[in-house]
Amino acid sequence: MAAAAAGGLGPGSGLGWTAAIRRLLRQFSSSQRPGSSGFQCLPLVIEGQQVGLVVPAVARELRAFPDVFVEVAGGLELRGGHCPEERTEAVAGVLAQLRAQGRLARLGRWRDEVYEVRPSFGAPALLNVERAAAPLLGVLQFGAHLNAFVRRQGDAAGSQEMLMWLARRSPHKATYPGLLDNLAAGGISAGLGIKETMVKESWEEARMPPELASRAQPVGCLSYTYEEMDGEEFGAVVRECLFIFDLEMPEDFTPQVGDGEAQEFYLWPLDEVREAVNSGRFKPNCALVVVDFLLRHGLLHPDEEPLYPELVAVMHQTL
Amino acid sequence: MAAAAAGGLGPGSGLGWTAAIRRLLRQFSSSQRPGSSGFQCLPLVIEGQQVGLVVPAVARELRAFPDVFVEVAGGLELRGGHCPEERTEAVAGVLAQLRAQGRLARLGRWRDEVYEVRPSFGAPALLNVERAAAPLLGVLQFGAHLNAFVRRQGDAAGSQEMLMWLARRSPHKATYPGLLDNLAAGGISAGLGIKETMVKESWEEARMPPELASRAQPVGCLSYTYEEMDGEEFGAVVRECLFIFDLEMPEDFTPQVGDGEAQEFYLWPLDEVREAVNSGRFKPNCALVVVDFLLRHGLLHPDEEPLYPELVAVMHQTL
Repeated sequence: MAAAAAGGLGPGSGLGWTAAIRRLLRQFSSSQRPGSSGFQCLPLVIEGQQVGLVVPAVARELRAFPDVFVEVAGGLELRGGHCPEERTEAVAGVLAQLRAQGRLARLGRWRDEVYEVRPSFGAPALLNVERAAAPLLGVLQFGAHLNAFVRRQGDAAGSQEMLMWLARRSPHKATYPGLLDNLAAGGISAGLGIKETMVKESWEEARMPPELASRAQPVGCLSYTYEEMDGEEFGAVVRECLFIFDLEMPEDFTPQVGDGEAQEFYLWPLDEVREAVNSGRFKPNCALVVVDFLLRHGLLHPDEEPLYPELVAVMHQTL
Repeated sequence: MAAAAAGGLGPGSGLGWTAAIRRLLRQFSSSQRPGSSGFQCLPLVIEGQQVGLVVPAVARELRAFPDVFVEVAGGLELRGGHCPEERTEAVAGVLAQLRAQGRLARLGRWRDEVYEVRPSFGAPALLNVERAAAPLLGVLQFGAHLNAFVRRQGDAAGSQEMLMWLARRSPHKATYPGLLDNLAAGGISAGLGIKETMVKESWEEARMPPELASRAQPVGCLSYTYEEMDGEEFGAVVRECLFIFDLEMPEDFTPQVGDGEAQEFYLWPLDEVREAVNSGRFKPNCALVVVDFLLRHGLLHPDEEPLYPELVAVMHQTL
């Protein structure tokens, strides 16, 4: 590359990351691309505050319930109910009917788990909705992911090798069956805190005792928006913020299969983890969590990776 | 707060961060606010690629040199020269005249140091410009900042205290004299690499031997756009990407005043560092670097800080 040849800012030969990073950039900026449905989406508004983003295909279905969803200039207003409880009930009624009629394929993934709907992270919840419907309404979703790692003494004096625990998702999961995942991760359900969710998932998925999981440190968050396809059509907008925790694990702890969301666990050297990212063997947002970990621990070099700033920015979008 | 009371996602009582974070958010998103000059700025274009963003006050001056800057539909095209060397010369000529005529106050900070101008980090440079002029043309600027920290054994068994080295800027600096700064930091000049810049600045500013500085690990980058005021008017657009390095320092190393950019050094416990951020005693972008460090090392808690995701996103804007 010209810039590198001149000894300047430009990147060197790279470490084989660039293709994988390009794929992640494409996926997690899909809603900003020309041809995306981004500009056709309708903001979902409650009392003047935007809480969601609805793709045209979903807006068509919601218009059939004018007691709950009212079309206003440039948006869709949720008018069913005047308090969180009433709104929750009104929207649940609409979703139940759409599900019964088989109108929106995504409602087939019904979880009987509710998410709180907020205009922003720090704001009070305005209603709760079924988890499977969150991307249909394009509401903010929050999750907690755990990077569990081990430092092992190497051969050379003082040298250390870092290894990472990973989970393989059950072949029976509705989404991304059989792909690699972080050791523990989950969406934050109504009424639960962030660290609380991480500790709970660590027990449920990997049988990690709460005393151990509690030692994990919060180290930032990732945030992104992307479009989900439903066959040929844009079906939903995923707007997600994942809170990240790092935990250095004792060498003698081995995760065990818990609730069956994860079927198997691996303790891999970071080179092997990177290779799995490169070959696309991760659930995509878990790949992003891993890349963020590698980046924060010095395994990506800005002098060698031309897409370094673009990658960092795409992982931290304003939602 | 309602959400916290309900035991949900919402934040708790906080740790006294919120006001400081609000100030940083305001500063580093100034170009996105209503009333900002953002939408009046003209993209600066070379052969179809945007390389800068020019505020109206500067565009007025550049229009007086139609051999070099040509107004085109919705932008300003740099037509002086057909290769990097010719463009560098043409723009340098314009800047020299504007400086001699005292037309743009910012040119008074002339450094005789050149930055490479690129449409994006990974692209080849299209010309070089004087550092003081980079914000006038709104070109991407790159910097390298070092967080130098020490781990000290605490009283309790196995407990560790983390301390951070900081620099106080010379009272003679043209910008932010006397404020707190990272131990070493600098803009990346034409022809220099990122790590190379960090190692060089560590020697120049703090007399840190290159063998020690080279051990620092790249841990990410911060990127932001903000507007600089020139009296009553928007004078420039700062579009900057800072590459961040962390270095755990041996306890027996003490920085020394080098080239005089820093006048004094402090080794502070992280609580004291945080307090200095809260009370606004840092050069603003160095405060951002420190907040990112504290965040990556578990000293900000998403369960307690309502602006956590907004802060993380504002530090990692797409440029």
